[in-house]
Amino acid sequence: MRDVGEVALLEEISRLVPARAGVIVGPGDDAAVVARSSHPLLLTTDALVEGVHFRRPWLSGWELGRRGFHVAASDVAAMGGRVRAVLLAIAAPPTWPAAELRGVVRGVRAAAARAGGALAGGNLATARELSLTVTVLGDAPARPVLRSGARIGDDVWVTGSLGGAAFGLRLLLRARRLPAGETARRWWRRPVARLRAGEALAAAGIPTAMMDLSDGLAIDAGRLVRGSGRRVVIEAERLPLARCLAGLAPAAARRLALVGGEDYELLFTAAPRQRAALARLHAGVAFTRIGTVAAGRGLVVLDGAGRPLALPRGAGHEHFRP
Amino acid sequence: MRDVGEVALLEEISRLVPARAGVIVGPGDDAAVVARSSHPLLLTTDALVEGVHFRRPWLSGWELGRRGFHVAASDVAAMGGRVRAVLLAIAAPPTWPAAELRGVVRGVRAAAARAGGALAGGNLATARELSLTVTVLGDAPARPVLRSGARIGDDVWVTGSLGGAAFGLRLLLRARRLPAGETARRWWRRPVARLRAGEALAAAGIPTAMMDLSDGLAIDAGRLVRGSGRRVVIEAERLPLARCLAGLAPAAARRLALVGGEDYELLFTAAPRQRAALARLHAGVAFTRIGTVAAGRGLVVLDGAGRPLALPRGAGHEHFRP
Repeated sequence: MRDVGEVALLEEISRLVPARAGVIVGPGDDAAVVARSSHPLLLTTDALVEGVHFRRPWLSGWELGRRGFHVAASDVAAMGGRVRAVLLAIAAPPTWPAAELRGVVRGVRAAAARAGGALAGGNLATARELSLTVTVLGDAPARPVLRSGARIGDDVWVTGSLGGAAFGLRLLLRARRLPAGETARRWWRRPVARLRAGEALAAAGIPTAMMDLSDGLAIDAGRLVRGSGRRVVIEAERLPLARCLAGLAPAAARRLALVGGEDYELLFTAAPRQRAALARLHAGVAFTRIGTVAAGRGLVVLDGAGRPLALPRGAGHEHFRP
Repeated sequence: MRDVGEVALLEEISRLVPARAGVIVGPGDDAAVVARSSHPLLLTTDALVEGVHFRRPWLSGWELGRRGFHVAASDVAAMGGRVRAVLLAIAAPPTWPAAELRGVVRGVRAAAARAGGALAGGNLATARELSLTVTVLGDAPARPVLRSGARIGDDVWVTGSLGGAAFGLRLLLRARRLPAGETARRWWRRPVARLRAGEALAAAGIPTAMMDLSDGLAIDAGRLVRGSGRRVVIEAERLPLARCLAGLAPAAARRLALVGGEDYELLFTAAPRQRAALARLHAGVAFTRIGTVAAGRGLVVLDGAGRPLALPRGAGHEHFRP
């Protein structure tokens, strides 16, 4: 950033972020001013740290910004909310190219705008390692969908497909040059917060509990029922596998779908009587019924014959280490 | 943090942050849910990065959290707003002691509560360097006070006193053992966002423009009038010097008040007819008239005889380098 200078860069970024409906005062003043809302508010923040959550060669600035937005906004989707305003805090070494910074800002801005929100402000700090902290302010639905409402007998559902991000990450880590590599890597690079689905589900009053899948189904499903005397039972053959896993052995694909993280799909529970309503709900993404909520604790995954599958101990996504 | 484990630590932090009025869902779910507001909203974020904004031996965890809150909340004060909810994103090496992390959370929580707000959520990420990113959601006053409203003929005012933080930082950097050292260092360690003053000023409709002083008066005053065809004229002898500067030569003290940063006092402009109203306004802090707004550009500082003082080129607070 040294090539441009922080003050000039901040001014340029202010121009990159024009006033939008709902944002009364954008970047450049002490704080952003956002129009009042008749809804309760959702507030969430998420960080992407170089060497922990990404490596620089894996993503363009634009993709990094886009990813930062979707990872943070996914938490708004998981409450059934709508994105209103976004803050972007960047910490970066002075040697980081200004073009990359502009790309990050544009990536966040475009993704926020697509979601109906606006990049309203942020912060730029010098640091040794590159990181993005994205904060999203959203409107909550009348009844925000919490993690804690799953009932015995509920169905367990997921949006979209699973395992694609973990497979893409694996290819990035190993720098493998597979024929389908670029497509697969994109599954990791370009997560999509399921905002439309989350909002539609909450508006229809369908989910009893909902969360987004960041650490992998095996870990996250356990969180839905922790301490509640309930257990999640998943039928492995029902798992919707990402298309990019098609070339893998079934067991390997299933493993990625179960313990691979960063899919940012929604996991939710709903009463069986909601199946018809779910079949009618159009939210631009598939809903797949993958199991049920039963009495007990933790998570059980059943194979096609109804036998419990062994899950690796501590199964779930672990961040790669620098 | 390795000594406790991230999941256990996050659960403990959730317990450290009990539900408070105005926070419907606190930490532990996907996003915080904050009660609706009848005001437009203020949104701001600020980062403290180890080696850039602080060094670890300078602050306890509690002081670091407290500082993180006040630095971010100062932007809410500068708009005349009121703090509602706070998010704390921490990036820290796994070796960072869990006790320090708890201290940071408690420091933010206590400072937010004192300001009438609540720590509502956050994020914890692994990183090589320690950093805090604090986001504050506030209620805006009916007319938020922008930076851009200064008029020719306005008085220029500051709250509190200047130069104390820069002197404290200097002592910390040089690790000097002066008799009054601990008191002086505290000026840097414990900034106070002027929330009560900012809100009272905005409610009374007094300031035409307002901002908080983070980079030093010489830089920040220039920002109030940049591109506006106006100039800030400051009378050096009127500057309210921090008590801890009493032992310094007058020129050295004045220099710290002008170009030392991180005081987090409010700088504002107001019509001269507001002087009586300001004298009557009780906001727990002194208001000092330090100059006027004139036609021209930039900043002029006059000595006791009305002669312009030379300001160091590029004068203003520069972050120390690791």
